[in-house]
Amino acid sequence: MSKIRVAVIGVGLVGSEFIKQLLSVPGSPFQLVALTSSTRTLFSPDTPITSSWKTQLSNSTEKADVKSLTERLKALVTPTDKVVVVDNTSSDDIAALYPLWLSSGLHVITPNKKAFSGSYSLYEAILNASKSAGARFLNESTVGAGLPIISTLKDLVLTGDKVLKIEGVFSGTMSYIFNQYSTGSPGGPAFSSVVSEAREKGYTEPHPADDLNGFDVARKLTILSRTIAPSPSIDSFASVQTASLIPSALEGIPTGDEFIARLPEFDAQFDAMRKEAAQEGKVLRFVGVVDPTKGEVKAGLEKYPTTHPFATSLGGSDNIIMFHTERYSPRPLIVQGAGAGAAVTAMGVLADLFKLL
Amino acid sequence: MSKIRVAVIGVGLVGSEFIKQLLSVPGSPFQLVALTSSTRTLFSPDTPITSSWKTQLSNSTEKADVKSLTERLKALVTPTDKVVVVDNTSSDDIAALYPLWLSSGLHVITPNKKAFSGSYSLYEAILNASKSAGARFLNESTVGAGLPIISTLKDLVLTGDKVLKIEGVFSGTMSYIFNQYSTGSPGGPAFSSVVSEAREKGYTEPHPADDLNGFDVARKLTILSRTIAPSPSIDSFASVQTASLIPSALEGIPTGDEFIARLPEFDAQFDAMRKEAAQEGKVLRFVGVVDPTKGEVKAGLEKYPTTHPFATSLGGSDNIIMFHTERYSPRPLIVQGAGAGAAVTAMGVLADLFKLL
Repeated sequence: MSKIRVAVIGVGLVGSEFIKQLLSVPGSPFQLVALTSSTRTLFSPDTPITSSWKTQLSNSTEKADVKSLTERLKALVTPTDKVVVVDNTSSDDIAALYPLWLSSGLHVITPNKKAFSGSYSLYEAILNASKSAGARFLNESTVGAGLPIISTLKDLVLTGDKVLKIEGVFSGTMSYIFNQYSTGSPGGPAFSSVVSEAREKGYTEPHPADDLNGFDVARKLTILSRTIAPSPSIDSFASVQTASLIPSALEGIPTGDEFIARLPEFDAQFDAMRKEAAQEGKVLRFVGVVDPTKGEVKAGLEKYPTTHPFATSLGGSDNIIMFHTERYSPRPLIVQGAGAGAAVTAMGVLADLFKLL
Repeated sequence: MSKIRVAVIGVGLVGSEFIKQLLSVPGSPFQLVALTSSTRTLFSPDTPITSSWKTQLSNSTEKADVKSLTERLKALVTPTDKVVVVDNTSSDDIAALYPLWLSSGLHVITPNKKAFSGSYSLYEAILNASKSAGARFLNESTVGAGLPIISTLKDLVLTGDKVLKIEGVFSGTMSYIFNQYSTGSPGGPAFSSVVSEAREKGYTEPHPADDLNGFDVARKLTILSRTIAPSPSIDSFASVQTASLIPSALEGIPTGDEFIARLPEFDAQFDAMRKEAAQEGKVLRFVGVVDPTKGEVKAGLEKYPTTHPFATSLGGSDNIIMFHTERYSPRPLIVQGAGAGAAVTAMGVLADLFKLL
């Protein structure tokens, strides 16, 4: 049986968990041949990289050098043995290397959204490199972590179904915040206190504005939209109509602490929206919509009836995604579950790796 | 690029839809080389089979002969060209041929539950033939039709997650019946009238006992259980603890019409269950459970709170499946949507075919 050689870039929370899962595969067809942290590279195609990888990596005398690593990985490709680069970073610089890797015959698997939601020219370069070299890129974990979102969408499209609308709660952070904040009752905890609590529990970025700006959702929508059909009409995630939740007076506040300190000034605004929704028998949810029939891709706060699955079925920091298609109509295909976290993200990456077998 | 040659057995509702979808794939890597109905075989590796396949098949002078077809398909296998048999029947006889096909190097894709939920010895023969010949069998559409159920379960297991419990509404017919019958209110339409209406709409088999016996659910649970880990402990779907909904006095009634005529005699029994559930704030749902930690596989009527997704989120004849795992805990991974119908079943089969590329 042919081997698949795996080079991991990024050994943080997701990277470490991925390595752990990879090394636990029974009778593994995968061989871990390289690790790169922000400071060091370990290239070890002959000596196995084991569960003591942290020591092995810190003993490596080689500085992090992804370009030279690329050359050495390329040399490992044979007609039967595949080489895969797993990018577990969230780096734009690493994402920019995908065309190089793919055109070198290296497959790319990643939960990093940057390359697929950045400039259309980079995305096009990735598609072209993949096609011409026959190397694949797989990115299940970029949307919904380990949930089967990208694969389901690809299956729908490949088999000739027509996507009418994708609608969902794509951010675990936004899900958590609004599941707490808006339950259908006109009152409840202050918006600032829910955000502050979410931050203390580690559900938000250190600077909550990095969640409340909606960019994470806009990036995921860009990826879904391009998975349906690559089109320059979305030049990058910045082209998505995104209704940020950052009060304009708080735009550009440099630290998360300052942001949290000032957020209570705007509680009344959020309360008014919650109350209005409740009076209509609705809840507030931060959702993303891709509507190919209208050519619409947008992220923002919307109202849903308290009987809608976004109100009744969601809890914790769940994602929920509804695929409305010609075949799944009038009732959509729905996928729901934890959409963030190291274990489920790493699982999505490893599941992609199995697809290369 | 290498070709995948496809032989279709069974050209009924699902088979016809599958052929339609297959012939619509743009720039198709698939070549339809054979069709077999219950009466005829068309083997046509050189002359393309087109959208006029019904005429082509009826013009064929060859009687249906799956054994001789097998020999001819085997001869088409090359190191680069795969040959796949797509079984769109629900036949036990065809299912019994999978070990022969697989050991001949022919891949098998099917929505037919029979082989995977029948005797353990047949299932074991399939596993062994697949392993020794390196030919794959894919059966996404056996559970939930086009919904990503089997693939999701495989990904969870492959990546080392531990399945704690799978719980779901697996029968579109049972879903439809109980979504109508039990809504949380103590009263409502009579059970017999809901079943009768479902039958008129074509949601049940001609003989509703074939749905109400729960065998379809037991078969699906057997498949899921074996996908987690093959084990002789389930000798066949008959080993699943299945609480049939057929009143014992109506067991063995030969025709659907007679069955429907007598079902009202038992409305009071069902009403009592509905009322009891409503008094506890619950609804009735016919569910299947696979619990590997308890070693339990069972199908039957259960009560769920009116706030549970099985009560709030279900509609039409939707399937809903919850995967409780070590990683997806305490909140499960959920997949929901239409779990029956020719278009979505054929889609699941075609998606499996793309996985062989």
